[in-house]
Amino acid sequence: MSDVTLPLGYSANGISCGVKNDPSKLDLALFVSDRPAVAAGVFTQNKVCGAPVKVSRSRVPRETARAVVINSGNSNACTGDRGIADAEAMTAAVGKLLGTTGEDVLVCSTGVIGRFLPMEKLQSGIAAIVPTLGASVGHFNAAARAMMTTDTFAKEVSQQVDAAGGCRVYGCAKGAAMIAPNMATMLSVILTDACLTREQADRILRHAVSQSFNCVSVEGHTSTSDTVLLLANGAASPGKPVSGEAEAAVARAIDEVASQLAQLIIRDAEGADHFITIDVRGTRTRDEARTIAKAIAEGPLVKTAITGADPNWGRIISAAGYCGVELKEEDMSLRVNGTPLYERGAPVAFDAAAVSASIKNNRDVSIELTLTLGSESIRFWTSDLTCEYVRLNADYTT
Amino acid sequence: MSDVTLPLGYSANGISCGVKNDPSKLDLALFVSDRPAVAAGVFTQNKVCGAPVKVSRSRVPRETARAVVINSGNSNACTGDRGIADAEAMTAAVGKLLGTTGEDVLVCSTGVIGRFLPMEKLQSGIAAIVPTLGASVGHFNAAARAMMTTDTFAKEVSQQVDAAGGCRVYGCAKGAAMIAPNMATMLSVILTDACLTREQADRILRHAVSQSFNCVSVEGHTSTSDTVLLLANGAASPGKPVSGEAEAAVARAIDEVASQLAQLIIRDAEGADHFITIDVRGTRTRDEARTIAKAIAEGPLVKTAITGADPNWGRIISAAGYCGVELKEEDMSLRVNGTPLYERGAPVAFDAAAVSASIKNNRDVSIELTLTLGSESIRFWTSDLTCEYVRLNADYTT
Repeated sequence: MSDVTLPLGYSANGISCGVKNDPSKLDLALFVSDRPAVAAGVFTQNKVCGAPVKVSRSRVPRETARAVVINSGNSNACTGDRGIADAEAMTAAVGKLLGTTGEDVLVCSTGVIGRFLPMEKLQSGIAAIVPTLGASVGHFNAAARAMMTTDTFAKEVSQQVDAAGGCRVYGCAKGAAMIAPNMATMLSVILTDACLTREQADRILRHAVSQSFNCVSVEGHTSTSDTVLLLANGAASPGKPVSGEAEAAVARAIDEVASQLAQLIIRDAEGADHFITIDVRGTRTRDEARTIAKAIAEGPLVKTAITGADPNWGRIISAAGYCGVELKEEDMSLRVNGTPLYERGAPVAFDAAAVSASIKNNRDVSIELTLTLGSESIRFWTSDLTCEYVRLNADYTT
Repeated sequence: MSDVTLPLGYSANGISCGVKNDPSKLDLALFVSDRPAVAAGVFTQNKVCGAPVKVSRSRVPRETARAVVINSGNSNACTGDRGIADAEAMTAAVGKLLGTTGEDVLVCSTGVIGRFLPMEKLQSGIAAIVPTLGASVGHFNAAARAMMTTDTFAKEVSQQVDAAGGCRVYGCAKGAAMIAPNMATMLSVILTDACLTREQADRILRHAVSQSFNCVSVEGHTSTSDTVLLLANGAASPGKPVSGEAEAAVARAIDEVASQLAQLIIRDAEGADHFITIDVRGTRTRDEARTIAKAIAEGPLVKTAITGADPNWGRIISAAGYCGVELKEEDMSLRVNGTPLYERGAPVAFDAAAVSASIKNNRDVSIELTLTLGSESIRFWTSDLTCEYVRLNADYTT
């Protein structure tokens, strides 16, 4: 990604330290701030969560974060007390080399669950990666690649903010698509040189996640290790937290980075033929809109209809009907790729062959469901369900 | 089904009346009681529901039911006021021929949604089917076949009850598996000659459904027309409602009929390679057990793992973790086909090749998740997710 704009005061790298069997695959990423940074985090809601989630969750929000260390290839989930000790040891090793405490280091792991981390390899890897850190686009790209498991491309997005005297936001992510024996995880690290308070960072990140990573779903399976971290080191305006219009501009940039990363995750979903944007409008609350959009997104019958290029309004309307939101069929109108299929409780005549062709001939599909219950809305993204998805998720062992 | 035991006082038949294009496919079923019967019903929770659901729901529980009329091939859902009028007209036509009011007739439809019923064909069909009603096993089998849409075999189950002076329970059902353009529906009619009060019938049917049809899921899509009806005409002991032990025996028989029918629906699920029984034990409530079992049953990653014969404990444990029930990984132990894979929060060593072979070589798979939270439990049934499922649900238009 040649047009990446990097925030000031950060360095990064990604290397291979032997967690993955294939030595050509990077498996250890490190992001470092040259000064204490405000850090916020949002984590998986799964009751079964990895040790790194437990450790990192206990350390945010904080004002003195220095680094994020991530390994791929082994998730350190379902590993009990030893898993916690291993996650803490990773952060302690990084902290020691940076001249700070392990408490100031956040940690993520992704990969196979139920196996202990190969700590010797990770300790050696951490010792090896710190001296190689750099602030080039290539260094950050290596870090982004080192987070990957089944992703087919690294996901990096950046934004230049003119307000606040000029600052930058960079984010990278790995995908939510799942393939065993990996319980693949959605991870994202967002870095800014804006100066934010702990309260600002936490609030801005939660908002960004609510309209990005919480608006995507491949198959509804919340992983044990999903993590989004935000670091704000203030290098652009040390000691002067943004406020007013400048704060809003930074928040918009972080929203945009998170949203683009979330969409890249869906674009890279395993075995998918279509990228589906679902707009639900006219609900009483945003949560209602999300519940409806999620039911449509995760409905195997909706997904397979899109795979088959079938403008099947019945499956979409029915998914809205069973999601638990209080509604009547008369409240709903539906468009697919811009064509009205259903209005206020009744199907309308449409050119099925034309709509089918528009699905078949385009990777992007638009589903717009408009209700008459209120003025809230959401935009949600998902992928379709193909034979290739089943093959990837069923036949990986053979 | 040669060993079907039919309850006294009922007749039935199934014919082709032209709703389906193929004249060799039956599409109109009628079940009639020769005397007023107590009737109870349980219906879809989908907010978008068919006109027949609205009409039948308003008529149960009642003490004077005489018939159930069902057409397949066209579901009469999303059809507005005209759909209601059509459903009522079907019941009025049957009622008139039976010398009673349409109010005493219940109605179901299954098939394509969003199209008006071809009422001329149905009126002619109703006039034609009434004179052909009969009380033979063949007549009931024809009725069971006339309910079918994508089912590959008729589903009929019966039970002889020795208590209560001897009585009988017969049930038939059509499948929940979904294939468009049909929004295929789960329908079941259960008939007994036991004498039940309205309150007994309603209570016994709700119990039976809660541990049968509400314990199966193919893909979590609740159809717009799901309906289970129970008629009890008392022909075995007119005017003498069962009580005590006899009532319990009748309830057990109805439970058993419903449970076997629900399992037959899963055994006939489209494109499935495996029949999966999920036992969740040791929860605080039965609803908790159901929530966990449903999350496992509907998880595409669990389903595809079974398709791929992979004893992937991580996907099962993780599904339990994200379903919303308050639990810790330490609370859970898991067996697949009897082999322990995970105990109290940690994976255990097992012969993966042997467990994989046991999945690959058997259609039936057992998943047993035991928790330490309480003493409630549930048994749930589902199918796996195959390429054939995707093909059937995606490529039906080509």
